[in-house]
Amino acid sequence: MQTQITNVDNGVNVEALLGAREALGKTPEAARFRWRATSQWVRGTHTRATIDAFHGLGGEQRHRQPFTFETDHPEIFASEDKGATPVEMLLVGLAGCLSAGVAAVAQHRNIQLRSVKATLDAGMDIQGILGIDDDVRNGFDAVRVNFEIDADATTEQIAALVAQSQKRSAVFDIMTNPTDVYVTAIKVSS
Amino acid sequence: MQTQITNVDNGVNVEALLGAREALGKTPEAARFRWRATSQWVRGTHTRATIDAFHGLGGEQRHRQPFTFETDHPEIFASEDKGATPVEMLLVGLAGCLSAGVAAVAQHRNIQLRSVKATLDAGMDIQGILGIDDDVRNGFDAVRVNFEIDADATTEQIAALVAQSQKRSAVFDIMTNPTDVYVTAIKVSS
Repeated sequence: MQTQITNVDNGVNVEALLGAREALGKTPEAARFRWRATSQWVRGTHTRATIDAFHGLGGEQRHRQPFTFETDHPEIFASEDKGATPVEMLLVGLAGCLSAGVAAVAQHRNIQLRSVKATLDAGMDIQGILGIDDDVRNGFDAVRVNFEIDADATTEQIAALVAQSQKRSAVFDIMTNPTDVYVTAIKVSS
Repeated sequence: MQTQITNVDNGVNVEALLGAREALGKTPEAARFRWRATSQWVRGTHTRATIDAFHGLGGEQRHRQPFTFETDHPEIFASEDKGATPVEMLLVGLAGCLSAGVAAVAQHRNIQLRSVKATLDAGMDIQGILGIDDDVRNGFDAVRVNFEIDADATTEQIAALVAQSQKRSAVFDIMTNPTDVYVTAIKVSS
């Protein structure tokens, strides 16, 4: 019996992930995360959101630094285009989630990646959000993601990497399945 | 009969939006948009996405400038935390979409906004993405959004603003309803 020595390095610490899987299987309450954002409206359709603290592994956690993101609408909607549109942020999240999964699965399968490019495209009929036709949904009609991957792997192995990433992707799950969203509001004096 | 003169200015051009609603109701093919993103994996779970071109109003459009966004996993997942997590990007999109809607609806209803803050919180049991328990979903179990709004409006008017924004929100629709996502992959040599 031989131990396979490999120099594959996609920058993913698979041992740590497998350790987490084992540890969290024994302490499932530590696997309960809460992700958070706060946002401040700037003006018009321009909003600034901050990502900083989250909860997980049984305690409060913070990112190494806060991350801020601007969203806005483009000029063709009579806005000032100070940031990406909110729906484009969903595509950013989907690209990041599936690509991280590809890297992690490739590491686990001893496949060296050289390049992982994704191109995403989502159709949306804005008759929905403009209230022209209530039968048109507000959101995407569908999303298409195409990966172009350069790796020490066959075409079949690459297809399997992407399929496994999709199977374990949080963002893919959120887009393809319904999630309850509860919105409340209070009046304040600033 | 009097014309109401108001100085309400939330920075939203409601006349342009109402004009678009009228124009696009007559030329529904111009209401078909395509939103796009491209991404390049950097290393590990770190990916960089770019938002630039999109399609709408019957032609190709571009943002005033490309926007780039970094996503990564935090250090407690043995990653380098070079950006927000992909799931946090969804909260950024939801905050931006609902806040833009609040501003637009307030403008239309002659309500001056002074401050619109949103706090978002989404639970996620990572036993799903880690493959510990296949009965646990990968994505959010639910999302809670709370708005704190300072405006020349009653509590009831503020609740109505938020309700109408939610009704017309693309991101709210995408999160609460299923969307088909098609993922393909090809092998390339870079």
